[in-house]
Amino acid sequence: MEQVIVHMSMSLDGFVAGPNVGLERPMGEGGERLHEWLFADPRDPRDAEVAAEMLAEIGAVVLGNRTFTVGEAQWGGATPFPVPCFVLTHVAREELVKGPTSFTFVTDGVESALGQARAAAGDKHVALMGADVTQQFLRAGLLDELQINLVPVLLGGGTRLFEHLGADHVELERTRVIESPRVTHLRFRVLK
Amino acid sequence: MEQVIVHMSMSLDGFVAGPNVGLERPMGEGGERLHEWLFADPRDPRDAEVAAEMLAEIGAVVLGNRTFTVGEAQWGGATPFPVPCFVLTHVAREELVKGPTSFTFVTDGVESALGQARAAAGDKHVALMGADVTQQFLRAGLLDELQINLVPVLLGGGTRLFEHLGADHVELERTRVIESPRVTHLRFRVLK
Repeated sequence: MEQVIVHMSMSLDGFVAGPNVGLERPMGEGGERLHEWLFADPRDPRDAEVAAEMLAEIGAVVLGNRTFTVGEAQWGGATPFPVPCFVLTHVAREELVKGPTSFTFVTDGVESALGQARAAAGDKHVALMGADVTQQFLRAGLLDELQINLVPVLLGGGTRLFEHLGADHVELERTRVIESPRVTHLRFRVLK
Repeated sequence: MEQVIVHMSMSLDGFVAGPNVGLERPMGEGGERLHEWLFADPRDPRDAEVAAEMLAEIGAVVLGNRTFTVGEAQWGGATPFPVPCFVLTHVAREELVKGPTSFTFVTDGVESALGQARAAAGDKHVALMGADVTQQFLRAGLLDELQINLVPVLLGGGTRLFEHLGADHVELERTRVIESPRVTHLRFRVLK
């Protein structure tokens, strides 16, 4: 069955962006270090396989308004994913279509956004973008899988993926490890 | 050559102890989850091998006074390691010998403690205990290796291993991955 999944490149100290994320620095200061594996030339074949799998398995995206705003400046209104995207926001706005990517602005909450994304994704996965949205889905028990691309660096600061989760343990099952020289690709299933 | 190394069982969200560590809860609330793999019965053979290697490669330990104080309550004055231990503290105190473990209290700083530990360790590694001491050694550029036993759980709170490191990136090289059902054992070398 289709899953709700997040793919994140994370430093060993838990950061998915550097400090001071903004329109001019979408990945924060030094945050591009986390994505070097994606843009390396030549790219390691195992890294390329993980990237291709990610693109192939995603049928829709849910993201936050901050990720959209920062991303719009970076990507010219597209996202890295050529699929229907659903932006969690408090401000209603008309649908925006940019090439293969459409943005629907959802003002009535996480479950509504997820329902629309599931319908759009068909038999593919719904992917989350952004640490804040990931935390919302984790807290709501709505996340099924995590693909953590663990980068061997300590960033020292920035945006943490895992924060504000509350005191209840979330048990995971590690379902796959793919080692490349630049990354350790770890896949987990959330146990419910 | 002998290395300065830290072995830590860490949750995917970066915690090495649960919240509210104290004399009655040395691992914090729920923190014992991180060490289940060590005490499982039967223990997975790969986990057993990692634990045996850790004991075999450690010739001396440097720890902080808080870890010592909490540990003294838990271990009756021993540490998990039957080797000379050097406690970083501000209060001078006579050496304490408990079976195969000795505690020397060092009041003149990290480098002094490391020098004494290196001398005691001979051709074995010097291991660090405690998140705070690990951070001090990382900041001082004195840590050579990390053995992170990554436990598939989100604790949601507690003591983070990687904090207060400053903004400079610390590049690592992943030198080994050992997968067991309960843990992903990751070994890193600090690139200097």
